[in-house]
Amino acid sequence: MPYPDQFEGFMINELGKYKEFKKQEFKPKKFGDNDVDIKIECCGVCGSDVHTITGGWGDAPTPICVGHEVVGKVVKVGSKVTTLKEGDRAGVGAQIWSCLKCQNCKADNENYCPHMVDTYGAPYPKDVDPDETISQGGYSSHIRAHEYFVFPIPDEIPSHLAAPMLCAGLTVWSPLTRAGVGPGKQVAIVGLGGLGHFAVMWANALGAEVTVISHSPSKKDDALKLGAKNFVLSSEEGWSKPLAFKFDFVLNTADMTHTFNIDNYLSILKVNCQFHQVGLPDKPLPAMQPQQFMPNGSSIGASHIGNRPECLAMLKLSAEKKLFPMVETIPISAEGCAEAIERVKNNKVKYRFTLTDFDKQFSA
Amino acid sequence: MPYPDQFEGFMINELGKYKEFKKQEFKPKKFGDNDVDIKIECCGVCGSDVHTITGGWGDAPTPICVGHEVVGKVVKVGSKVTTLKEGDRAGVGAQIWSCLKCQNCKADNENYCPHMVDTYGAPYPKDVDPDETISQGGYSSHIRAHEYFVFPIPDEIPSHLAAPMLCAGLTVWSPLTRAGVGPGKQVAIVGLGGLGHFAVMWANALGAEVTVISHSPSKKDDALKLGAKNFVLSSEEGWSKPLAFKFDFVLNTADMTHTFNIDNYLSILKVNCQFHQVGLPDKPLPAMQPQQFMPNGSSIGASHIGNRPECLAMLKLSAEKKLFPMVETIPISAEGCAEAIERVKNNKVKYRFTLTDFDKQFSA
Repeated sequence: MPYPDQFEGFMINELGKYKEFKKQEFKPKKFGDNDVDIKIECCGVCGSDVHTITGGWGDAPTPICVGHEVVGKVVKVGSKVTTLKEGDRAGVGAQIWSCLKCQNCKADNENYCPHMVDTYGAPYPKDVDPDETISQGGYSSHIRAHEYFVFPIPDEIPSHLAAPMLCAGLTVWSPLTRAGVGPGKQVAIVGLGGLGHFAVMWANALGAEVTVISHSPSKKDDALKLGAKNFVLSSEEGWSKPLAFKFDFVLNTADMTHTFNIDNYLSILKVNCQFHQVGLPDKPLPAMQPQQFMPNGSSIGASHIGNRPECLAMLKLSAEKKLFPMVETIPISAEGCAEAIERVKNNKVKYRFTLTDFDKQFSA
Repeated sequence: MPYPDQFEGFMINELGKYKEFKKQEFKPKKFGDNDVDIKIECCGVCGSDVHTITGGWGDAPTPICVGHEVVGKVVKVGSKVTTLKEGDRAGVGAQIWSCLKCQNCKADNENYCPHMVDTYGAPYPKDVDPDETISQGGYSSHIRAHEYFVFPIPDEIPSHLAAPMLCAGLTVWSPLTRAGVGPGKQVAIVGLGGLGHFAVMWANALGAEVTVISHSPSKKDDALKLGAKNFVLSSEEGWSKPLAFKFDFVLNTADMTHTFNIDNYLSILKVNCQFHQVGLPDKPLPAMQPQQFMPNGSSIGASHIGNRPECLAMLKLSAEKKLFPMVETIPISAEGCAEAIERVKNNKVKYRFTLTDFDKQFSA
C-alpha cells in the first residue's frame, strides 16, 4: 500500500544487526488536525541512530526506522495547521510530539515534556493515536509530525545542510545559548565531531572566544577554520594546567567521557560554571565524589536537544550568516545506510552524513 | 611556653584514633601585619572535624588540632588591620587565608582561591610564613588569622550560637543565595542534620517555600519548627513521583549520597536546575551516565563554604531576625572533645555541638 496509508523506509529488524537495512512498509500514526506530512528529500545520520540500532543505549522496539534529521516538502496539512502549507520546505528533528499543556511545555521546555514522543522508536499516547503507534524516523519516504515540531527551512540553506542542524545543530545550540554564551565569554568545546563542529561554529558566531579540546592533532586545522581561536591537545600531559579557571562553559561533545580524567575537565571552569555533556557514552562516567566539584564550585550536567524558538533562531542565524555544517552525502539505499552508519560508528566522517536522492528509492 | 609564642589545643596524634585527644602546645604561623589573634571562647564541632581525624577524607598532617567554627575575643591586631580592634568579639570559619590577588579572590570568590589555606591541617605559603607552618584549628586557646577571614559577631548572637554558623551556616547560605533562593522559589533540603537544619532556617527566612526530604520520620517536627512547609519521607516507595519537576534547587546536606537512587533526586528538579551537594561522603557517588540528567537538563554540583560578604550577610540576617541554630554545648576537655566527635559521627546531636568553657582549660 502506498502513501498515505503506508510509509516506506529502510529498517533494522534486530538490534545489533545494525548494517542489515531492509526496505519495508510501516504504518504511520493516525493523521491529526495539527499534523503535517512531509515527503522526505534527505535525512541526516546521527550518532543516536548508531547507538539505537547497535543496542548500545539499550532496548528499542523493532523493526525500527531511524533518522531524525529530516528535510522535505510538505504534502499534506491538518485542518488546524497554521504554521505551514502544502509545498513548503520543512524539517523535523529528534522530537515529534509533546503535550503542549504541561508546566514544561508552557515554559518553552517542550523538549523536557514528560509525555514527549521521540521521532523514532516511541509510542504515541493513546489519546493522540488510538493504536499507540510507534514513531518511525526519516530513512523513509514520509514523516508525519505535529506542526509544532516541523520547522520551515529558510531558502538560503540547502536541504542536505539543513538536515544535520535539526538534531546535532540544535543539541549544541540550546545549551550554548542557555548558558549565555556570547561576547566576552570563554567557551571550550571538547571533541570535534558532528556535534563539536557545530558547537565551534555556533559559539564563535554568538561572539564567544572558542577553544577546542581534542585528543587528535589532525583536528586542529578544521577547528580554526570553523572559528576556534585556540586548540588544545588533551593527549598532552598537563594540558589542563594552563587553562585553570578559564572557561565560562565547557561543552563536551565526545562520547568517550567514561575514559576521561574528569578532574582535569572540571578544573578549567570558572567558579560556579558547568561541564555540560551532549555526547552520550554507552558506559557510565567514572564514579565521582562531591569533593571533585569543590575547587571551583562547578557542576556537571546534560541537556536534551532544544525547543522550537531555539531551533528557529538557529536556522535564522545560519541563513543570515551563511553558516553551514561540513557534510558528506550518500544516496539512500540499504547499502548507503549501512555505509553511513558504519562510518559514523568509527568516526570516519567529516563531520556529518546526509542521506540524499530519496526520490530514486521512494516513488510515491 | 605560653601565648603569644605557643598556642595550646586538644590534638589528635594519629588519624583513626579520633577519640584520643591530648592537650598539647603548637606553634602558630609568624604574626603578620594583617593578622588578628583571637583568644577563643568557644568552638563548634563540624562533620569535617570527624571526617578529618577518622581519616575518612584521606591523609592529613598530625598532630592536628581541628575545629573551624571559632568565636572569641580579639587580643592582638597587626599594624595594618582596619576591620577589627582589641576587645572585639569575632569569629573564624573554615578558611583562614587566601591570596586576595587572583581572579577568584578579586571576584569575591576567595573561597575558591587556588592558594587558600584551610583553618586546620594546611601549610601556609612560604612567602607568607617562612616556616610554612601548618594551620591548627579551634579546639585550642587561640587562633591567628588574616583579618579578611575574621568576622565581627553582632551583639545579638550569643557566642555558642554564632560558632556553628561560621562553617555549617555559611556552607549552606552560600549555595542557597547563589542559586537565587527567595520568594516564589521551591527549595528542597535533603537531610536534617547540622547543615540541613541551617538550610531550612535560611531558605525559609530568604522567602522560599521549603520542603525537607528525610529518611527519618522523627525529623518532621523539627523540620516544620525550623520553617519547612512540607516534609517528605524518602524511605517511602515512590516518594519522588508527586514531586516531579517541582524544585528550583535541591540542596543535599546528607553525607550518605552514595546510597541514594540519584535519579529520584534529579527527577524532582525543574528544567535546568541543580542538585547541589554540601554533605561530603567518604565514598563515591553511584556511577552516572549523562543520560540521567537529560529528562530535565539538570546538573549536579557542589560548593566550598562561602565568601566574606556572604558570611557578613548571614550574620546580619541572623541578628536581625533572631534566627539561631539548635545547639548542644559541651565543656571543652579531652573527654568533651571525644564525646562530641563520637556523637557527631553517629548523628546523635540536635543539631550542632559547641565546645565551651575554654577559660577553664586554657589560662593564658
